Amino acid sequence: MEGLDFVQLRTLAAVVSEGSFEAAARLLHVTPSAVSQRVKALEEAVGQVLVRRARPCVATEAGAPLLRLAGQLVLLEREALADARGPLTGAGTRTRLAVVVNADSLATWFPAALARLPEGLELSLDIRQEDQDHTAELLRDGVVTAAVTAQREAVQGCRVRRLGAMRYRALAAPAMAATHFAEGMTPAALAAAPAVVFDRKDRLQHRFIRTLTGQTLDPPVHYVPSVPAFSETIRHGLGWGLVPEQIAEDDLASGACVDITPGRQVDVPLYWQHWRLESAALNALTAAVRAVAADTLR
Amino acid sequence: MEGLDFVQLRTLAAVVSEGSFEAAARLLHVTPSAVSQRVKALEEAVGQVLVRRARPCVATEAGAPLLRLAGQLVLLEREALADARGPLTGAGTRTRLAVVVNADSLATWFPAALARLPEGLELSLDIRQEDQDHTAELLRDGVVTAAVTAQREAVQGCRVRRLGAMRYRALAAPAMAATHFAEGMTPAALAAAPAVVFDRKDRLQHRFIRTLTGQTLDPPVHYVPSVPAFSETIRHGLGWGLVPEQIAEDDLASGACVDITPGRQVDVPLYWQHWRLESAALNALTAAVRAVAADTLR
Repeated sequence: MEGLDFVQLRTLAAVVSEGSFEAAARLLHVTPSAVSQRVKALEEAVGQVLVRRARPCVATEAGAPLLRLAGQLVLLEREALADARGPLTGAGTRTRLAVVVNADSLATWFPAALARLPEGLELSLDIRQEDQDHTAELLRDGVVTAAVTAQREAVQGCRVRRLGAMRYRALAAPAMAATHFAEGMTPAALAAAPAVVFDRKDRLQHRFIRTLTGQTLDPPVHYVPSVPAFSETIRHGLGWGLVPEQIAEDDLASGACVDITPGRQVDVPLYWQHWRLESAALNALTAAVRAVAADTLR
Repeated sequence: MEGLDFVQLRTLAAVVSEGSFEAAARLLHVTPSAVSQRVKALEEAVGQVLVRRARPCVATEAGAPLLRLAGQLVLLEREALADARGPLTGAGTRTRLAVVVNADSLATWFPAALARLPEGLELSLDIRQEDQDHTAELLRDGVVTAAVTAQREAVQGCRVRRLGAMRYRALAAPAMAATHFAEGMTPAALAAAPAVVFDRKDRLQHRFIRTLTGQTLDPPVHYVPSVPAFSETIRHGLGWGLVPEQIAEDDLASGACVDITPGRQVDVPLYWQHWRLESAALNALTAAVRAVAADTLR
């Protein structure tokens, strides 16, 4: 511990998880000025600015390792207290577990893992949604304890396990396919046909175009950052897009969509990364996530 | 125009919509240094810092009105060009329309409005997702042209129309309801039972607790920021939560969930706010949104 103050560390963690000094104060049942004093005292002890005072507040580079430490201490403390007091002592001892998951996993297979958690495990889940190419950043910054991520290389201090691949199929409404792709997936067709893209971090459609054509094209794009709205927008014929096979199957069976590249899917390998911690809650979640992933991913 | 440079304004808009100088440069097919020079020149002309250089870049308070102006000019320019050139001149003249929608609307009724847009309207939709209590901020900051919002008061320069109310029902899995609410929705039960909450901006569950009990309680919370995962988490019995009636109906019919406050729903009135602009694209979207809302909201 090198003399660091646990209350100050916990306060730092609350400021970043809640996003502001005021919200952290509400969570900790103290005044905003007490929160501010604690963070300042910790910054003086470390000799570094730890939190960038923005909306929301985020950890600085120097703050990230301390935030990770704080998260680990809080998790271990909660579990030790829960063990000491017995399993059914109410809300005060629930273990908060912060996890980041990519949108498509969250909308399809991930919730089934929550259903597999052992009874009596008193958890408070703090799930975040982020693009699979960016989830590892939240792990590195100490904001979350575990991540479903496309990053294969272990984040420092983390353990990584392969979960399997999420498979995507390229879908379009039949009318859209007939209008744009009657001559096949040519570079000219792909440059002119609107693509549905989740958000500016989502590079899946653009990468698929490069795989198909060998070219970097700049098609018109609709940004639709909601999994149900994404496939609904495709069904309505506004553009083509890559849809998780779990969702694609229904659209293909009903005839709402056609596969515009039959036999050519996109597989995105996913990994489970988590802090190296002896935490019962984290171990239980890891086991549940791995079991469901083994059943549903490729 | 007071002597403002259109190219500089368009560059400012690109920096904020894309989030960085580099991404704006890619969009505009110029160098990042050209982007930087244009923004600096505009800042000198106005005598104010217009962009906070952060990740992502955001408009300062002084930048917001200029961003709004830039968005309006770009929209009107695109439409004038499209009119001049005829409707089918390819991707270059697509009108980009930035809209912010709350997650539950986006996951349920909103995409049907996209299906009602007239054929041949060359749009590029830039949809953002935000809590209905915060969507108006993006309108005020000039990031979007229109919003589905809970805010009834018109944002400056905007027109507002009532869309109807989104109705929510309080659901829990039967086992969870039996464990926690056998004695009814008492303050003690609501303080101990885990609630599923979308994210830290979502106050719906907490407000409902205050309506039911007259008290401000602090129940254990699971944050699940994905509409499909939110209701799936409730189905799996991890907590209770307020679910849009369109989704709730299926869960009640199948027996996956029960209504824990029969006859007591939550109605959230929604409004369509948009810039006062004579834009064909915006007018068409407004007509489509109002028509679908009239069919699906209360």
